[in-house]
Amino acid sequence: MGNLSFNLSPELEGILEGLHSFIEQEVVERHRQAGEALSEPRLMYGDDGLFTEKVLESIREVRMAAAEAGNYTMFVPESLGGGGLGCEALYRVYEDIHHRYGPHNWLTTYVVAHWVRGPSHVLEHATEEARQRVLPHLLSGRDSMCFGMSEPDAGSDARMMRTRAVPDGDEWVLNGSKIWITNGPYADFAVIFAVTDPVAAADRNGGISAFLVPTSTPGFSAEGSIRMFNSPGGDEALLYLDDVRIGKEMVLGQLGQGFDIALSGVASGRLYNAARAVGLARWALELGLDYAKRRQTFGVPISEHQGITFPMAESAMEIHAAHLMGLNCAILIDQGRSYLKELSMAKAYSTEVAARAIDRVVQVHGAMGFTNEMGFVEAWQHVRKAGVADGTAEILRRVIAQRLLKGDLDL
Amino acid sequence: MGNLSFNLSPELEGILEGLHSFIEQEVVERHRQAGEALSEPRLMYGDDGLFTEKVLESIREVRMAAAEAGNYTMFVPESLGGGGLGCEALYRVYEDIHHRYGPHNWLTTYVVAHWVRGPSHVLEHATEEARQRVLPHLLSGRDSMCFGMSEPDAGSDARMMRTRAVPDGDEWVLNGSKIWITNGPYADFAVIFAVTDPVAAADRNGGISAFLVPTSTPGFSAEGSIRMFNSPGGDEALLYLDDVRIGKEMVLGQLGQGFDIALSGVASGRLYNAARAVGLARWALELGLDYAKRRQTFGVPISEHQGITFPMAESAMEIHAAHLMGLNCAILIDQGRSYLKELSMAKAYSTEVAARAIDRVVQVHGAMGFTNEMGFVEAWQHVRKAGVADGTAEILRRVIAQRLLKGDLDL
Amino acid sequence: MGNLSFNLSPELEGILEGLHSFIEQEVVERHRQAGEALSEPRLMYGDDGLFTEKVLESIREVRMAAAEAGNYTMFVPESLGGGGLGCEALYRVYEDIHHRYGPHNWLTTYVVAHWVRGPSHVLEHATEEARQRVLPHLLSGRDSMCFGMSEPDAGSDARMMRTRAVPDGDEWVLNGSKIWITNGPYADFAVIFAVTDPVAAADRNGGISAFLVPTSTPGFSAEGSIRMFNSPGGDEALLYLDDVRIGKEMVLGQLGQGFDIALSGVASGRLYNAARAVGLARWALELGLDYAKRRQTFGVPISEHQGITFPMAESAMEIHAAHLMGLNCAILIDQGRSYLKELSMAKAYSTEVAARAIDRVVQVHGAMGFTNEMGFVEAWQHVRKAGVADGTAEILRRVIAQRLLKGDLDL
Amino acid sequence: MGNLSFNLSPELEGILEGLHSFIEQEVVERHRQAGEALSEPRLMYGDDGLFTEKVLESIREVRMAAAEAGNYTMFVPESLGGGGLGCEALYRVYEDIHHRYGPHNWLTTYVVAHWVRGPSHVLEHATEEARQRVLPHLLSGRDSMCFGMSEPDAGSDARMMRTRAVPDGDEWVLNGSKIWITNGPYADFAVIFAVTDPVAAADRNGGISAFLVPTSTPGFSAEGSIRMFNSPGGDEALLYLDDVRIGKEMVLGQLGQGFDIALSGVASGRLYNAARAVGLARWALELGLDYAKRRQTFGVPISEHQGITFPMAESAMEIHAAHLMGLNCAILIDQGRSYLKELSMAKAYSTEVAARAIDRVVQVHGAMGFTNEMGFVEAWQHVRKAGVADGTAEILRRVIAQRLLKGDLDL
Repeated sequence: MGNLSFNLSPELEGILEGLHSFIEQEVVERHRQAGEALSEPRLMYGDDGLFTEKVLESIREVRMAAAEAGNYTMFVPESLGGGGLGCEALYRVYEDIHHRYGPHNWLTTYVVAHWVRGPSHVLEHATEEARQRVLPHLLSGRDSMCFGMSEPDAGSDARMMRTRAVPDGDEWVLNGSKIWITNGPYADFAVIFAVTDPVAAADRNGGISAFLVPTSTPGFSAEGSIRMFNSPGGDEALLYLDDVRIGKEMVLGQLGQGFDIALSGVASGRLYNAARAVGLARWALELGLDYAKRRQTFGVPISEHQGITFPMAESAMEIHAAHLMGLNCAILIDQGRSYLKELSMAKAYSTEVAARAIDRVVQVHGAMGFTNEMGFVEAWQHVRKAGVADGTAEILRRVIAQRLLKGDLDL
Repeated sequence: MGNLSFNLSPELEGILEGLHSFIEQEVVERHRQAGEALSEPRLMYGDDGLFTEKVLESIREVRMAAAEAGNYTMFVPESLGGGGLGCEALYRVYEDIHHRYGPHNWLTTYVVAHWVRGPSHVLEHATEEARQRVLPHLLSGRDSMCFGMSEPDAGSDARMMRTRAVPDGDEWVLNGSKIWITNGPYADFAVIFAVTDPVAAADRNGGISAFLVPTSTPGFSAEGSIRMFNSPGGDEALLYLDDVRIGKEMVLGQLGQGFDIALSGVASGRLYNAARAVGLARWALELGLDYAKRRQTFGVPISEHQGITFPMAESAMEIHAAHLMGLNCAILIDQGRSYLKELSMAKAYSTEVAARAIDRVVQVHGAMGFTNEMGFVEAWQHVRKAGVADGTAEILRRVIAQRLLKGDLDL
Repeated sequence: MGNLSFNLSPELEGILEGLHSFIEQEVVERHRQAGEALSEPRLMYGDDGLFTEKVLESIREVRMAAAEAGNYTMFVPESLGGGGLGCEALYRVYEDIHHRYGPHNWLTTYVVAHWVRGPSHVLEHATEEARQRVLPHLLSGRDSMCFGMSEPDAGSDARMMRTRAVPDGDEWVLNGSKIWITNGPYADFAVIFAVTDPVAAADRNGGISAFLVPTSTPGFSAEGSIRMFNSPGGDEALLYLDDVRIGKEMVLGQLGQGFDIALSGVASGRLYNAARAVGLARWALELGLDYAKRRQTFGVPISEHQGITFPMAESAMEIHAAHLMGLNCAILIDQGRSYLKELSMAKAYSTEVAARAIDRVVQVHGAMGFTNEMGFVEAWQHVRKAGVADGTAEILRRVIAQRLLKGDLDL
Repeated sequence: MGNLSFNLSPELEGILEGLHSFIEQEVVERHRQAGEALSEPRLMYGDDGLFTEKVLESIREVRMAAAEAGNYTMFVPESLGGGGLGCEALYRVYEDIHHRYGPHNWLTTYVVAHWVRGPSHVLEHATEEARQRVLPHLLSGRDSMCFGMSEPDAGSDARMMRTRAVPDGDEWVLNGSKIWITNGPYADFAVIFAVTDPVAAADRNGGISAFLVPTSTPGFSAEGSIRMFNSPGGDEALLYLDDVRIGKEMVLGQLGQGFDIALSGVASGRLYNAARAVGLARWALELGLDYAKRRQTFGVPISEHQGITFPMAESAMEIHAAHLMGLNCAILIDQGRSYLKELSMAKAYSTEVAARAIDRVVQVHGAMGFTNEMGFVEAWQHVRKAGVADGTAEILRRVIAQRLLKGDLDL
């Protein structure tokens, strides 16, 4: 499959084939039947900007069918009851399904459990008691999670975190708020990061802990959605914690070491975004090539004009480069080698070249390229958002430069 | 006003001040009172994706108030009963109001009659009889027009035009369809371009005529809206003409010379888009600078980071360049000098640098930059669309290159 | 002349015409007769990398002929005995002669006295005594100057300046070294910047003074040339000052205010570089267009390929923009308006777009584009160097960003 | 070695180590001793612009020492008596030695026989008789070749080739001229492409044959050098063939199939240029990082400024991408898989990002970056030239677009 020197193992090839069958039957068919109900923003979101019940039901159905078919938990560690597949598999799966199914059949994104919505390796840090409580329904696809890191005034700077957790008897009491929380309006559990040692946090020396909080806990509330890109709805929420009381068994990992958990999650997010960007860019480019062969102006197909084809050749180069960077990095991670600079490069580069590539395909299509129908705008929004999510373009360049200046010169 | 060597005449300065007062009172205040009804896509559009009656009413009210205040027809030729202001005025007005009011107070765009929605110089080609019929209500702001040029398979190539007009007694009978027709769903009159001499059209030697068609004429129908940018609605339509019968007095200009009328309209569109792009880019850049001074990370405002400020300095250079190009070109037109290359450069350059500049401001804001609330996405969409409308980026480069190769080397 | 809305005054038009005649007769003809002696690096430079006597003689002859014809001192203030033309004239002249004569007829650059090589407005700060000593031979074109600002470890930071001047009786004693001093190997006088008040300099509160130093003064030596761009020679030197004793009448301007003098010089340099960049870019672009019409591949001229013409259309837009920025800024300066941001933008933008434009013309020519014969490489080197000289690209962006952040938002 | 998922085989690692020792002893030491004689253009080239005898002798000594040490012929096919290493080895070797030794120790480029200067796989097409005549001295490093393809009016279009070969008895008689022939002034043998069947050539259906021509043959002459980049010399020549008579045994491969031989050579050239570009870019970037840590302005090292570090982070991403593209493509070739699009992408991308990366390092160094001493300009010229050589940037984009449009969508 493909003409890369990175060989696809027969095992992975089998997994991809299995996914294709599943998606055709359970996702593409479902979208076909639902029609506008799953594609028209006006129908997908209620007046509050949140997914309608029908949409949420479809999502849950896909998750549970995928769990039953053995797809849903393929990237969940074996210790948590999942398939334990590694980063190369993760990269290949996400690149492949976005390349193949584009943004329209968006239920595809629920076929494999995403680290944020869970279940995911983040829960490896959970106590046995917490696992028993949350894992069964997360693994079955019935429940989902969210990842409560960002705050209104805190980007990548731990010292700015305002959410506090203070011990009170056998419990922790959490207060604060979170923003940009994907799946926040719908999650059954939230991983909440809070300052437990203000002095350490102020020194950027730990002091932040992670808590697994059932969203039904008194004092916990979600206000969604934060509407973006002129859409009438979305799946991002503000979370509020007002004297939320949590048992000590719901702490994830070591007290004060929450940042490490967060970073491991963010690393998954970067790889995921890199893969998705490449997949969506390839999906768009292929439509652009196809259209250029069919569309005629002045009596010839526009594929005769270098003003049309050269930008697509440029995209091809950049997408190919991004693909190799992503695969290379995923394999490095699987091999236990250093990857901080490589992952930063792969994520920044992939999302940026994908945004450019999709924009060029829009231009090839003229006004048609802007329509909801074609889906390019949606694909572009996904990758553009990833220029901020899980490490902005600037944060990633900072990381890359710091690594280079420290002598990490392998390129 | 401003620190450009192009001086603003006292007359124009007075006009701009008058516009500001009008807009504050009639537009900004109206938006303030209407709140979400005029800003939330879900409430602005009906299930059919068209503006609600309430929105249309607001638009008409603004137009009529502007007409009464003497603003609405400032760019309409004096011979049609308008203010007769020229291209420099047009450029300055559009740049100024977009710079000052941004995309949120969008009723601003109806304060001055736009060439497409009319009334406009396009009607200088109308017969006396046609003028008497359409002008009064267009000048008063009650009625509006649309410009029916584009077809599904015809971009800039006249030979591909499929809409036909054939004479029948004292009438013309029109058949065909049009696409991407802004204001199409709401217009009272449509300027429709149709082939009247197929042989001449096939030779690209005229053969296309323009007709002024009341949209209430039997056989005329509009199907709106074509939804774009994931919005639940829009103001663009498909028009269908099915044996539409029109009296000969509704022909615009000389038979077979419709393309010249179209080009004069498109020229206005290019200047308008160039001005709007610069105005919106400046609006966004100023918000970006302001945010950079307030937003803190790691204990310092992000305006301390060259990773934040250098891209904005880049934008400033490009916007400044675009501004000078637009003004220079507008003055050339007013002076009756050649402007085809200059206008192509101003429009292509302005819309492209504005898209980049707004995107950089989005990035400065992080996730906040994507929200509907901030308005950057909306501004970006306006200028991105202009990379296709009224001459795509590629068509404009073709024109520029052709002029250069023919020896038009003035830069 | 030209198709810009900035009108060229009849007076300036006359000046340009006069320059053309002079250059044709005195420069172009001289190059024609000298042939390789003035074009082949091997013959132009001696083993020490310095201009041969013959080259220096040609330069002096051109300067003196230009002085006699009234061209040489046109930008020198009237108070110094020059023509007193302003910044618009300066911009137009430099743009025009580089556009028209390209890099090959390089003696053209000596036709008009350049602020660095003098005489120039820098000498307005000279005492009457100093003027009598240096002006006559500078105005006649016999002598020349250089501008001794840069030091090995001091870029734009006054605190890093190491050259010191200490008073001793009626004299100042200078010690230190300077680098990158254009015309340094050949100058008769050097404007040397030195710290006279170390405390003030360390506080960036003045403390630096300017001295007019005859290069024949004992202790003064020049070591040239610093070879660049693989050339076997050059006109830049290291200057050494070893107990150089200068009378107090040779101080320029107020003691401790040397930085202001330097900045006024650098401002001229920025405008000059902006103009030269635009002129050379236009010269190159026109050759590129011409070649594209003549060169055939696969049976058609390469001007039929958008892969060739679109990049040149891009260049045209950028050069046009740069041209307008430069003219606008020059007029602002002449009108006594604020120009710091505008000049920074014009210089940064012009030199960068010119480098790109020339590089694209190289590419149009294929391997031929790299040859000494075509001159593109030489033109490219001039504008690329200007990306560092008189304020690096980064310093200029800093200035632009600082001005924007302080509320200077006129674009 | 390195932090890429592409593992370096122990065999290749050994080869690289062997090369390092050889280069340190035979090249670096030789440069050290020769000093300016091998670095100062004025001393390296005679008045005719050609290498001096001393330089040519050094080159020959390095070649012969490398041959004796077993390095010289490592990429020559085993059937010709060489080491038979494949494309991955070739890529790794060229990337490594340019990365490690930069442009200054330029004799390094003669340590391994280059396909153009020979011996190389091009000679696999030689008859037994021809092999006996040319191979021994080519393999020993005494003799060298050149590759006579380009003509003044023929770029990539075979129909434009003017050089003709006509049979006459047992001989072929060649007439024509060639341009841009690297090593042309010094080669002992030239591979000359000539039209042998004008009708087939006009149809682009073969008709072009390759001849192995001793440069001492009567009628053969070389006129060097074509001077580029303002250098006083060079190693490129015009070749003239005036009734050059060659025995039939000197035809390479099948008559009329010369283009295939040419393409196989050009493929090697593309891979070589891709590898060299990445190596030189890494060499430059590392110097830029080092300098940024040492150079202070305003009291801090410039590595504290994102205006300095972000561009280098950008370079790192692009160089890393180019490196992966090159390695991936080399492995594809070794595996016998399709590589036309991949090689075009790797060569175009690598040379373009390397030019940018080196230019950014120049900018980091300020004026110092332009000096001959630093070597950046020389490195930049190498990679900039490769934007034209062995397939221009435009030809490569054409190839990429054609492959994509034909359905070769693997990225």
